[in-house]
Amino acid sequence: MTMFASVADFEAALSSLPKADAASIAEAAARQASLTKPAGSLGRLEDLALFFAGWQRTARPALARGRVAIFAGNHGVAARGVSAFPPEVTAQMVANFRRGGAAINALAAAAGLELEIVALELERPTADFTQGPAMTPEECLRALQAGARAAAGNIDLLVVGEMGIANSTAAAALSGASYGGSAGDWTGRGTGVDDTTLQRKIAVVSEGIARHAGHATSAFELLRRLGGREIAAIAGAVLAARQRRIPVMLDGFIACSALAPLARHAPDITAHCLAGHVSAEPGHRRLLGALGLSPLLDLGMRLGEGSGAAVAVNLVRSALAAHEGMATFEEAMVATAS
Amino acid sequence: MTMFASVADFEAALSSLPKADAASIAEAAARQASLTKPAGSLGRLEDLALFFAGWQRTARPALARGRVAIFAGNHGVAARGVSAFPPEVTAQMVANFRRGGAAINALAAAAGLELEIVALELERPTADFTQGPAMTPEECLRALQAGARAAAGNIDLLVVGEMGIANSTAAAALSGASYGGSAGDWTGRGTGVDDTTLQRKIAVVSEGIARHAGHATSAFELLRRLGGREIAAIAGAVLAARQRRIPVMLDGFIACSALAPLARHAPDITAHCLAGHVSAEPGHRRLLGALGLSPLLDLGMRLGEGSGAAVAVNLVRSALAAHEGMATFEEAMVATAS
Repeated sequence: MTMFASVADFEAALSSLPKADAASIAEAAARQASLTKPAGSLGRLEDLALFFAGWQRTARPALARGRVAIFAGNHGVAARGVSAFPPEVTAQMVANFRRGGAAINALAAAAGLELEIVALELERPTADFTQGPAMTPEECLRALQAGARAAAGNIDLLVVGEMGIANSTAAAALSGASYGGSAGDWTGRGTGVDDTTLQRKIAVVSEGIARHAGHATSAFELLRRLGGREIAAIAGAVLAARQRRIPVMLDGFIACSALAPLARHAPDITAHCLAGHVSAEPGHRRLLGALGLSPLLDLGMRLGEGSGAAVAVNLVRSALAAHEGMATFEEAMVATAS
Repeated sequence: MTMFASVADFEAALSSLPKADAASIAEAAARQASLTKPAGSLGRLEDLALFFAGWQRTARPALARGRVAIFAGNHGVAARGVSAFPPEVTAQMVANFRRGGAAINALAAAAGLELEIVALELERPTADFTQGPAMTPEECLRALQAGARAAAGNIDLLVVGEMGIANSTAAAALSGASYGGSAGDWTGRGTGVDDTTLQRKIAVVSEGIARHAGHATSAFELLRRLGGREIAAIAGAVLAARQRRIPVMLDGFIACSALAPLARHAPDITAHCLAGHVSAEPGHRRLLGALGLSPLLDLGMRLGEGSGAAVAVNLVRSALAAHEGMATFEEAMVATAS
């Protein structure tokens, strides 16, 4: 059965989100309290252990198999001169991912993650969203379906990343249309544009938001009008993962922007998501705040590809190793606090 | 030859600190600029690669062998009732480290680090520093020497951690005596003391600082009067590592407090050090600021044992994996920015 075969199918999935298992969380919390350390002293590592317990429905969760899914798409709005790189770089970087030469190849391997590369009709960029919807409903559904396929299989964690020249422009428009604020609030330098290009980019984002203001009444319409194929695929992957209770590690501004339209209509969509990091792209911090997510890392990264999220997976491994491997006060015969 | 055989020996080491190799840093920076990513887009991961290049004196640094050295000591000031745990927990936790049941065992293994446990005369606590110097000069030298021994061998990174009931009291006194400010500025809840104990702890720190104010004129005198054996051992390990150009990953408030007296007299002592994290102990953020260090992680941890630093080593592995493994624009035939 194809997931997201229709818009109604997508909307049904978004309105029926499984919850974490409270009993497993409580059991994991009791274990944490028994381990040989002052209560709470592992900070967010303890939170991570409980988070995985809730979604895996066991007090002793494990990360046996994690996957980075990196989605690539091309954007019609690139023709407006909003990026420091030419659009052919999207396909060139996909080739680089496939040959193993990109940052995400090294970072996924270092974190023990498999890597799936999903190139989405790169030869057919989306339409320029300042002129009309970026995608037809059928195009957007195909992208959502591709995302769902990338979340399939017996995995314990899905890391979502992206590549697409000009996609920080789409992410800014999608965030602004979802949460309000000015185009300047959401628009940054992306891969590193100069001041002139930044001003042009802000104007393009503003045009896009205004162009679709009357029509962006649902998560799906927001996604298809202002998003891109890789962004819609991330939305599909995150939603499909949720249906299967698979935790998701989000990456930077663009990956998170895929959640903006969904979270506006279904705020609980982020409950199975972790924010791997906050990037140097200024809109990201604002977006994480709107999504109610607190980043695990703040390293000034701004690469995309799932790179920051892949690095953050190491923290999950540390958290689960401590949760699983530590002795209890009783086992170790250590005195407890007075 | 024993390192730190005398106070003069320690002072000579502190006044003669090797520097990172600028040529290797420049070569590593040139490599970073050639890799298939927007310039600077890996943020602090790029800084970490350059840092290791400088200390390893090669443009392609590697972390083949890393060690966590965890130093344990007992404190006479514990008798003043400044901790939530009884003093026998220091030895009990050392036994737990040796059996592999503590957080640092799991976290060191997860980060691929060897673990060396150095228990320092646990049966003889230091003297209560509100009554006199915590250590005699000979005791302090022995602790420094133990630290230097733990930094020996063919390692690429040293992680320093500690265990010692009441040692956040010593760390607060040492930080306050080194950098000024009130006892309250430097004193926190440690393993989790209640309000009454916190007030008593602040009073004890204040007494200690006042008691030694006229005598704490050198790094050595500060260390021996207000520190503890595990704190002096960390100072010795960090200084010995510097002499051999081995980078150090610092842990929390107590580990960093070992550097306070040294850095007051030789600010460059921190140049080969990374701050693994900022802990929930409020004095730590202040101390990192005084030391001029920016933490890699901020996860609300407050356990000690080298735990936060061990987690941060995963970031080093990610940084070096990207630096080593990525293709250049030329190799990957990817177009560069306009």
